[in-house]
Formats: sequence, structure tokens, C-alpha cells
Amino acid sequence: MNVQDRIQAKRVAVDHELKRLLREDDSPLFEAMRYAVLSGGKRFRPVLLLCSGECFGVSLEMLLPFSCGLELIHNYSLIHDDLPSMDNDDYRRGKPSCHKAFGEGLALLAGDGLISLAFEVLAGAPVAPALYPEKQEVIREISRAAGSRGMVAGQLLDITLPPQELTEERIHDLILKKTGSLIVSAVKSGAILGKAAPSEIQAIEEYGKNVGLAFQVRDDLMDAVQQTASASPPRPNYVFVVGREEALKRLQEFVADAIQALEKASLRSEELRELAHGLLRLEKGD
Amino acid sequence: MNVQDRIQAKRVAVDHELKRLLREDDSPLFEAMRYAVLSGGKRFRPVLLLCSGECFGVSLEMLLPFSCGLELIHNYSLIHDDLPSMDNDDYRRGKPSCHKAFGEGLALLAGDGLISLAFEVLAGAPVAPALYPEKQEVIREISRAAGSRGMVAGQLLDITLPPQELTEERIHDLILKKTGSLIVSAVKSGAILGKAAPSEIQAIEEYGKNVGLAFQVRDDLMDAVQQTASASPPRPNYVFVVGREEALKRLQEFVADAIQALEKASLRSEELRELAHGLLRLEKGD
Repeated sequence: MNVQDRIQAKRVAVDHELKRLLREDDSPLFEAMRYAVLSGGKRFRPVLLLCSGECFGVSLEMLLPFSCGLELIHNYSLIHDDLPSMDNDDYRRGKPSCHKAFGEGLALLAGDGLISLAFEVLAGAPVAPALYPEKQEVIREISRAAGSRGMVAGQLLDITLPPQELTEERIHDLILKKTGSLIVSAVKSGAILGKAAPSEIQAIEEYGKNVGLAFQVRDDLMDAVQQTASASPPRPNYVFVVGREEALKRLQEFVADAIQALEKASLRSEELRELAHGLLRLEKGD
Repeated sequence: MNVQDRIQAKRVAVDHELKRLLREDDSPLFEAMRYAVLSGGKRFRPVLLLCSGECFGVSLEMLLPFSCGLELIHNYSLIHDDLPSMDNDDYRRGKPSCHKAFGEGLALLAGDGLISLAFEVLAGAPVAPALYPEKQEVIREISRAAGSRGMVAGQLLDITLPPQELTEERIHDLILKKTGSLIVSAVKSGAILGKAAPSEIQAIEEYGKNVGLAFQVRDDLMDAVQQTASASPPRPNYVFVVGREEALKRLQEFVADAIQALEKASLRSEELRELAHGLLRLEKGD
């Protein structure tokens, strides 16, 4: 298989496991949870976790629950993010957003259900006793990344920072929290489970930060086109801060820095390289 | 110290630790989180966890992170429960509810922040390596209790079950999910960490279920008086299903059954007895 096929195979494995985790219940709550999770999505974060873990010699089977836990957290955040009191988005992945399809109360609870399920899956991940400390460290790492100094803090900045007050420094901080936290925790989790050396963990973190920045700048580049054409209120967007030309340049720099971080630590993963490199193609995905 | 003082000392220990966990950040997010968590509250669930763990020989020090994790989950659920799309409650513990004080978006995120912090605290709880499997089992138990087959499912029933369609069986199911899940997981967590025998875990679960039912029936008895006097829409309430006389009788039965469950398994904890018995006094507390 070439690198694209190997990445695609991982996406399929994640999708399959997510379906399995969400299937055994026909309550409206699970219906809403399935609607949100199984409606597309590129599975970028869980695939990053799988590739990072593999790069450090961990089996796909052992990594899968961790990668799915992470993806469930990402999806809970999308549901809550779309709510009227947040971004008030009517659409997600080309379909009505969860609260548009199920009502606000049920959508809120579907998000709450997903984050609880995420930690149930993480805590239930079967690992050999020798890996218990690493497993705990990973759960801690992911909860920290998802929480009020990570992703949740970024979401707050996203809804409260007045766009006109944005500087490049501030939007960096926002992106690293809102988008970067989970992406860094994805690659770090794989490394921790693979008992990577501190220098390797540092390198993979550097990779993750740059991938997070590239991911969001690419997203902002595509959003900027839509936003200019729509009447919706402006949201913090990299392009509006530095301009389109500069944003494109930054995107290339972040991708190059991500790949360089791998090389400097001699981390040979064609897939991690490709996942960073692929961000240069401007196509939508979460 | 008498039993009341010993329970009070545990409350103080929980409050102290919660303050410590929430102190190191002056962002609006943490301000909202502190507002919600440190505004009173009887710390019923964390104290139950501490008493159960102690009953099985676990030290207070080791139990404290688990009990605080549980209380953070309880408090996140109160914030989300009060939101306009849920119960739409303007007051909580005699003060404006979190979204009334901080706005809906920030309150939603404060809840999200608290549940993430809860799992960060749980995953970070220091235990001896011999207890790693029990620790993981406890995190799993708590996430399951908090999630979409436990508390979150109960909250959905609470906002969707038409009061006129309530039977005693249905409201039992609702209470066991909405209130019982976390209470059962509190006492079960203590028992699991204390490596209790299966028969003891079964007994403590039986105790927890009855305490959960008693807790909610007592709450409903007090709410029923308020609801009759107010114009707010009726909510599922035990008193409205079986009447006040019967509800009082059930409250006594649940408390007696809880205490009997302890006795049958020879679990001698004056504090667990007192925590159940205290529910016969009709005073408000969460």
C-alpha cells in the first residue's frame, strides 16, 4: 500500500470502531450522538494518533481506543460549538447541525454524552500492565488538552475576542488552544504509549503545534472566501489578520516546520509527513 | 469526634481541595467555574465516596482526588441543567445560576471545562502501582455513571417525559439514572479502590441506589411545596406521582433499605448509616 492508502485504511478502522462504540442503543440520545459523529469527518486527529503511535512501535489495536476517545471529544466540541449561545451554526459537514436536527436540549446532552463516552473508552482501553502509567498519562494529557487551559479556553477566545483587536500573536494563541491542543495531544499520546524519549516527545509536540497551526490557517483560508460572500458576523480568522498572501506563506512555513521537527529527531514516518504535507491542499475537513 | 463532626471534617477537606484545584487561573472561564463549584453545596457525593472508601480501609488522602473528580462532574451537570434549553433555572443555591451571572456561552464552556478537569483530576490521582487496575475501573465506572446510559440519560428523561405520563416505575427509572448513577458510582468507587469483595460491592450498590432514591424523593418533597406555589411548568416529581403521604413513606423505606443493605453485608460504617439516615430530615442540599 502507498502512504495514502495506509492513511485511508486507518480512517476506515477509526470509522468502524466509532460505529461499534455508538451502536448498541436506540435512544434519541444515541441517535443524536451517532448523527454528530458518523456524518463524515476526516478523522484527522485519531489518524494522527495512530500514525504517531505506530511510529513508536505501538500496535494499531492498542492505539484504536485512544484514537476514538480523542475523536469523540473532538465531536462533542463541534456540537457545543455550533449551539446558538456559541457560534450559532446551522450547518456542519453539509448537514443541519446537531441542534438544528434534534433541538438544543438534546444536542447539549449529546455533547455531554460524547465526552463521558470518550473517557469511558479511554479508561477502558486494554493495555498490558507495564503500560498502566503511560495510559494514565495519556488520559491526563487528553483531558488537559480538551479542558479549560486548552480547547475550551480556545473556544472562549473564539467567541469573545473582538476581531478588530486581533494581532498575529493573539490568533496564534487562540489557534494553539482551540485547534492545536487536541492535535498535539493526539501525536503526544501515541509517543507516550510508545515510551518515546523526552527529546522525541518534544519533537512530536513541535510537529503537532505546527500541524495545528497549518490546519487552522488552511481552514481560515477557505472560510475567508465564504465569509466575504456571506452576511454572518466576522469570526477570528488568520486571513483577516495577516492577509491572504501572508496566510498562504505561513501555511507553507508551518507545514515545513512540522516536517523539519520530525527530521530533526529522526522520526521516520511517511504518514506523519504526508498528513502535514496534505494540509497544503486547500480542501475542507475537520 | 462524633459522626456528624467526622462527616463535616470530610466536607471541609473536599471544599479545601476543590478550592486548590480551581485556584491557579484568573481567566473568566475559571471565574465561572469557581462561581459554580464553590458556592455552597453539601458535597454529598464526594463525602459518600470518602466514607465508602474508608469503610474498606483506603486512606482519605488517596480517596480525595476521586471524590473531587466526582463533585466536579456533579457541578458541571448542574450548570448545563440550568441552561435555558434545559431546565431554564435562574437560581441555584440561592444565587443567580451560572448562565445568569456569566452568560450562556461562558456557562456552557464552564461546564465543559469542569468535566474535562474532573477527568484530569481522576487520571492524575496518585495511587500505588498495585492499585492501577482499580483506578482505571473507577474512572470507567464514573464516566459510565455520568454518561449517556446514566446521568445524561436521566437528564434527557427529565426534560422530555410528560409529567402526566409518569408512572411510579418510570420515575424510579428517571431518578436512578439522573440522581442515582453518580451516587452509586460514589460509593462503588470507594469500594473498588478498597478491593472489596463482589458481595460487598453488590451491597454498597444496593445502599447507593436506595440513598439515590431517598435523596431525590426528599428533594421532590421540598420542591413540590415550592412548585405548588409557583407558576413554573411542572417537572417530573415523585410527590405528584404517588402523593405526599406515600412519598414520605417511600422516603423512610428507601432509607431503611439502604441501612439494611449495609447490615446484611456487615459493613460497619457509622458515617454511611448517618448519611442515609440524615435524608429523613427535610432540608435542601445538592
